Amino acid sequence: MSDCIFCKIVKGEIPSAKVFENEHVVAFLDISQVTKGHTLVIPKIHKENVYELTPDIAKNLFEVVPKIANALKATYNPVGLNLLNNNGEEAGQSVFHYHMHLLPRYGEGDGFGAVWKSHQSEYKPEDYQKMASEIQQNL
Amino acid sequence: MSDCIFCKIVKGEIPSAKVFENEHVVAFLDISQVTKGHTLVIPKIHKENVYELTPDIAKNLFEVVPKIANALKATYNPVGLNLLNNNGEEAGQSVFHYHMHLLPRYGEGDGFGAVWKSHQSEYKPEDYQKMASEIQQNL
Repeated sequence: MSDCIFCKIVKGEIPSAKVFENEHVVAFLDISQVTKGHTLVIPKIHKENVYELTPDIAKNLFEVVPKIANALKATYNPVGLNLLNNNGEEAGQSVFHYHMHLLPRYGEGDGFGAVWKSHQSEYKPEDYQKMASEIQQNL
Repeated sequence: MSDCIFCKIVKGEIPSAKVFENEHVVAFLDISQVTKGHTLVIPKIHKENVYELTPDIAKNLFEVVPKIANALKATYNPVGLNLLNNNGEEAGQSVFHYHMHLLPRYGEGDGFGAVWKSHQSEYKPEDYQKMASEIQQNL
């Protein structure tokens, strides 16, 4: 897409710090460096979000993620690593070209964290089965 | 692994609300339901984290994620969706069998959120290139 900043990075029309590239994907450092080594992996083809990824695009993208994760681990020796992908503005998406964040972690206060509230107490065992059936009907 | 709760779910030794299953992966509802429809996608084979995934295991896992994401969207009409994978206890991992969270989003206060602090002001353009080179050397 002509006005997509990540398509411009793919084409080399704007600079980026590329970590990895093959026929299908590009990985480059996120300008915000939420944590040190914060890297994005994107498909070269413009797809807005996870909903639009074909099985092949999804495979080609995630195939390289363990390799890049291991390189980040070897380089910065983090205590952990999060993968995050935001779909939709209300889920935190700000660039509408699919991208997966790789966030090496260095301990509390390193820049990233998750708000995480369990709702288990609101569900009965049969509720889970009912929900699973509902979702299956839309597969 | 004999004492792994997710291996037991794969084998059907303990119950789960399965959403999808094929030769390589199982997807089931997370008991905590951080947001409604919160689903985990896991490889059937025991791998602790992203570092241990082979390219084939990674491909087989992520290939099915868009399909499940679309089913969640069709079922619950969320305003967004996050994919999250935690590697290491300090990154929020509590079960040590690789799993990717699919978290449909319904707006602020729905149970999930991200702490997100940019560190861009601490980096100069040449720092990014230096870091990318460091990581490339470990690929």
